[in-house]
Amino acid sequence: MIRLQNDYSEGAHPRILQRLAEINLEQNPGYCTDAYCADAAEKIRQACACPEAEVFFLVGGTQTNQVVIDTVLAPYEGVVAARTGHVSCHEAGAIEFSGHKVLTLPQHEGRISATELQELARSFWQDGNHEHMVFPGMVYISHPTEYGTLYSKKELEAIARVCREFKMSLYMDGARLAYGLTAPGTDVTLADIARLCDVFYIGGTKCGAFFGEAVVFTKGNMPAHFLTRVKQHGALLAKGHIAGIQFDTLFTGNLYCEIGAHAIRLAQILQQGLRDAGLELYINSPTNQQFVELPDTVIRKLEERGVVYSFWEKTAPGKTVIRFVTSWATKEETVRELIQIIKETLIE
Amino acid sequence: MIRLQNDYSEGAHPRILQRLAEINLEQNPGYCTDAYCADAAEKIRQACACPEAEVFFLVGGTQTNQVVIDTVLAPYEGVVAARTGHVSCHEAGAIEFSGHKVLTLPQHEGRISATELQELARSFWQDGNHEHMVFPGMVYISHPTEYGTLYSKKELEAIARVCREFKMSLYMDGARLAYGLTAPGTDVTLADIARLCDVFYIGGTKCGAFFGEAVVFTKGNMPAHFLTRVKQHGALLAKGHIAGIQFDTLFTGNLYCEIGAHAIRLAQILQQGLRDAGLELYINSPTNQQFVELPDTVIRKLEERGVVYSFWEKTAPGKTVIRFVTSWATKEETVRELIQIIKETLIE
Amino acid sequence: MIRLQNDYSEGAHPRILQRLAEINLEQNPGYCTDAYCADAAEKIRQACACPEAEVFFLVGGTQTNQVVIDTVLAPYEGVVAARTGHVSCHEAGAIEFSGHKVLTLPQHEGRISATELQELARSFWQDGNHEHMVFPGMVYISHPTEYGTLYSKKELEAIARVCREFKMSLYMDGARLAYGLTAPGTDVTLADIARLCDVFYIGGTKCGAFFGEAVVFTKGNMPAHFLTRVKQHGALLAKGHIAGIQFDTLFTGNLYCEIGAHAIRLAQILQQGLRDAGLELYINSPTNQQFVELPDTVIRKLEERGVVYSFWEKTAPGKTVIRFVTSWATKEETVRELIQIIKETLIE
Amino acid sequence: MIRLQNDYSEGAHPRILQRLAEINLEQNPGYCTDAYCADAAEKIRQACACPEAEVFFLVGGTQTNQVVIDTVLAPYEGVVAARTGHVSCHEAGAIEFSGHKVLTLPQHEGRISATELQELARSFWQDGNHEHMVFPGMVYISHPTEYGTLYSKKELEAIARVCREFKMSLYMDGARLAYGLTAPGTDVTLADIARLCDVFYIGGTKCGAFFGEAVVFTKGNMPAHFLTRVKQHGALLAKGHIAGIQFDTLFTGNLYCEIGAHAIRLAQILQQGLRDAGLELYINSPTNQQFVELPDTVIRKLEERGVVYSFWEKTAPGKTVIRFVTSWATKEETVRELIQIIKETLIE
Repeated sequence: MIRLQNDYSEGAHPRILQRLAEINLEQNPGYCTDAYCADAAEKIRQACACPEAEVFFLVGGTQTNQVVIDTVLAPYEGVVAARTGHVSCHEAGAIEFSGHKVLTLPQHEGRISATELQELARSFWQDGNHEHMVFPGMVYISHPTEYGTLYSKKELEAIARVCREFKMSLYMDGARLAYGLTAPGTDVTLADIARLCDVFYIGGTKCGAFFGEAVVFTKGNMPAHFLTRVKQHGALLAKGHIAGIQFDTLFTGNLYCEIGAHAIRLAQILQQGLRDAGLELYINSPTNQQFVELPDTVIRKLEERGVVYSFWEKTAPGKTVIRFVTSWATKEETVRELIQIIKETLIE
Repeated sequence: MIRLQNDYSEGAHPRILQRLAEINLEQNPGYCTDAYCADAAEKIRQACACPEAEVFFLVGGTQTNQVVIDTVLAPYEGVVAARTGHVSCHEAGAIEFSGHKVLTLPQHEGRISATELQELARSFWQDGNHEHMVFPGMVYISHPTEYGTLYSKKELEAIARVCREFKMSLYMDGARLAYGLTAPGTDVTLADIARLCDVFYIGGTKCGAFFGEAVVFTKGNMPAHFLTRVKQHGALLAKGHIAGIQFDTLFTGNLYCEIGAHAIRLAQILQQGLRDAGLELYINSPTNQQFVELPDTVIRKLEERGVVYSFWEKTAPGKTVIRFVTSWATKEETVRELIQIIKETLIE
Repeated sequence: MIRLQNDYSEGAHPRILQRLAEINLEQNPGYCTDAYCADAAEKIRQACACPEAEVFFLVGGTQTNQVVIDTVLAPYEGVVAARTGHVSCHEAGAIEFSGHKVLTLPQHEGRISATELQELARSFWQDGNHEHMVFPGMVYISHPTEYGTLYSKKELEAIARVCREFKMSLYMDGARLAYGLTAPGTDVTLADIARLCDVFYIGGTKCGAFFGEAVVFTKGNMPAHFLTRVKQHGALLAKGHIAGIQFDTLFTGNLYCEIGAHAIRLAQILQQGLRDAGLELYINSPTNQQFVELPDTVIRKLEERGVVYSFWEKTAPGKTVIRFVTSWATKEETVRELIQIIKETLIE
Repeated sequence: MIRLQNDYSEGAHPRILQRLAEINLEQNPGYCTDAYCADAAEKIRQACACPEAEVFFLVGGTQTNQVVIDTVLAPYEGVVAARTGHVSCHEAGAIEFSGHKVLTLPQHEGRISATELQELARSFWQDGNHEHMVFPGMVYISHPTEYGTLYSKKELEAIARVCREFKMSLYMDGARLAYGLTAPGTDVTLADIARLCDVFYIGGTKCGAFFGEAVVFTKGNMPAHFLTRVKQHGALLAKGHIAGIQFDTLFTGNLYCEIGAHAIRLAQILQQGLRDAGLELYINSPTNQQFVELPDTVIRKLEERGVVYSFWEKTAPGKTVIRFVTSWATKEETVRELIQIIKETLIE
């Protein structure tokens, strides 16, 4: 079986497993008040070149989005996101469950545009009835986006400018940040992100950890009594040091970027292979998610040969976009085998 | 340092760590739809002698309480609990955060009484104004309780009877269930719990897992679209199989009860040691939590000698109840050393 | 001053005021359990030709939408509405505040299309990941819409069919229902609405009452313990009989339709006057709201002459759509005077 | 029939009805932005000797409590109240529905004690685990209480002092404030209340209005975007001027206190009559609610003679406390007739 369905199918990067084994019998205080969480936070501050950053560790992506959005927004505020943003459509309404509207913008290969954002904010504030509407209090972007695409530094700066102008917090969902930081051609660094965003998270679950997301508040803006609010959301880990040690490992000796770079290299090989097979890529993604449109008949044959992919969307009768994803755990031979199978399938 | 502060200071039982290492590179589908979750569920069904039980895996205790209570209750219903129940006072208002009132009963060494429960339900339904009040829709009990005490089978049956009479669900918080099942003198088995409760959870975090709680619905009563509701709460694990493998291990070859029995044996040694030192136990706890009242001067000396305990409550000026907790990771020599230090401290 | 800004500027229809005065010293039980509420409900059942209808009286429109949507939907469900639906954009996020997402459809002069609704429902259920998304559990329509337009019976039937097919409740916001029932050319009666919708409300606030909206559940589907849930929302009136007497009056001797017909007649005069003045109507509205696009310079002059209108939207630089609204309280001479002023202003 | 069941059985004080009729055809802007609301607010500021007070008009008591508590508290805070406080037990969980816990104190004839409040706050802040608990952010008192009793100025000052010490807002529920201000022996004035409380409401519904409660923020502490938050709660009145005109009337020429004084005078007559009949009052209430314990056999006879009362509580087998309530609408002859009937019934 060739499974390139997603980047959270396996356990954790071997170095994480090893560290967990090494410290297994150590005793630590609970609730992220331990030394590993402190060390990991310090390493993240350094990696972000943001000595004043406040860092907290949560378990998963939807949880992190819900907690951050709910605690940063005032109750009368909503969050602006692309129609295809994870918070807009793939979190079972977790944002609305905690009382906040997701205000949507058009998506451009998963990205929002600073101009359209400015227009939304401007027309809200100009509307004489805006007190009867939801205030745009935060902007949510994902980087990489749900389509594997990235913002350029210039685009991020433009969005950040609009956010400052209209007093909206800028929040980046970095569930797959490792793959964004190491993508070919990107000019966006962790330090840029820390400088431009008010809050963002560094994804662990999809980047080599068993679980865990590191939330980074960069402007002294961590909500008051954050631990209590996390607990109120049912999101506080008792054995917080298990999250801490994982991020401590990811940010020791550049492991986080190694993981990203490995997956990117294989994604590039896959991309080239698909092109060589005469296929057009559905989206030009520089990260670890690759999208390709195929006839349903071809997809059926791939399934018969044991290829596991991720369904993306129906584009036309008989045509479907599917997604392949690489990760720290993907092997080059698997990717090469997949390319070979696709080529054979297309020729049949 | 002698740390008997709680049962969640260390990592996970070595067998869990080993299994995680063994399957680390295996690929599994996400969100608890994998084979390990299925196997663990099946083993739990057998251990409960409840073939129709539905099992779901969550991360932590407060989260589990919030998700279960919110999804089982109708919006106009509240949950009845002891004043000292975890949901009443130590979850930062997580139950109210999801919209439900905690209706309190007096506590009797952490337990509620079936008679007082019946009185509460009766007087609610007799009140001509009950439509202006919160309906008692569920009863929350912890077993062991927050004071380490246990219900007898007779007590549980009486509470279950009142629940049936007034159509309230009976929910047991089993955060420390391993220690309840293996306590000396208990007549309550997992099968009894499955028979008497409508839903309960088998604690992992405090019983040897890195994290994880197994929720068991015993009467075909798992709420519709439970996975979606868990996600809506931000509580759905992407790598659900990491929870599954942990419970699969805990329920392979009786490990869950081995863990409980080890901690209980050490708690009994500690108890005897405290008695031998002439101390009276604050509560007669048959499980892994032991409470003792000491003069503050003595406590100060213990601290100086490196003893880490858990503060419980001030009982009188100059007197404090502290708690010691044993676990799968506690060593007998540590307990014996603690006893020795206490004895020496008392003599000084 | 000529104020045709909206239909809720004045007090109540004189017959309502008179009835309130007549019964002022009568004593009634509270919380809508009185005889006036019962009588009003019975008259509404008859007017709807729906003997099994359950009726409850609330205070205002946003409150009614919030209470109905929150109590009819399961927590994992959202409500489908036009992008321009009142619940989508003009209720300050009251729907999300109670935990539910508003899933949007394109608007066609304020209406949704049955075809697009079917497509939304179909693609939701076909999506292999729909458990990670918000379930479409209800369809919200307004009749008249926010643009003054109406559904035809055929359109309503098509929407109702899709709702049955995908098990979604059909809910009609009838804030201005009086004007819908009496519009020229409509083929939709109260009985049709009761037959096709699962729940709807008959607007009082905008149709001649001091306040009040009558919620009608037509299929034995009033949520359990509805009074309690209304109270929980802070929406239960102590002096419920004040709402009851108002609806009793509105449904005595056809007053509700008289009020509608009066406003419609004046709206038609206004429409004709605007056309005679050479203006094109922005939307062809058969009800009491009339929209017209005017140059900003003309609007400024109208303001100088004391005309109070409602801002609708900027359509182009220098052009704005404004809204005029008639009601039970509008006088024919006021409308004629407005037409005259507009004509004069255009000539200048 | 003799109905002294409560103070919200009738319509509105005749002067209110008259004002509503006088201005019925006037046109006013919506949502409490009209001149009547402004005038009423100004009169209330003067009556409170609090020129900086911010005033907003809502519809009912539970709604007001829910909106005030939810908008003033931070999400991690709860409200402290007597076990018998209206928010604790008679609002169907409306406070918890909006996410906040009600932290309870013992009641002393409906009142809380400053000492017990201080103890609660102190022990919360001293607890090393208080981040896992609900923060006490506000204190709720009712004046008159649910038992008709009143705080003295000294008691209020002591409570206010504790509130300042622990940074909790002091909130007074004045649903029946008219009767508190005019009770014999009270030394608490509106100005005292404005000085000592951070926010309170002046009840309309139970003091002569059709509906309406005037919320008064006294310390520049009205929550940001309050109108939006009120709307989000479904609590914003479209025809806000109908609330405004009622409070404008109540605060013109001392009507509010006239209404209170009338009811108090009759309550005193009733009290004396009950005493003359040899009955002991259950509580020594100086306001318009009077409680008396009677044998069930006597109560049955009163019912047969057409007396409508309010059930309060069972005190012993065969004994029940019932409540009689006077209002602006109660007539002296009704009270005297009631006394006569009770006397006759007791003799039989």
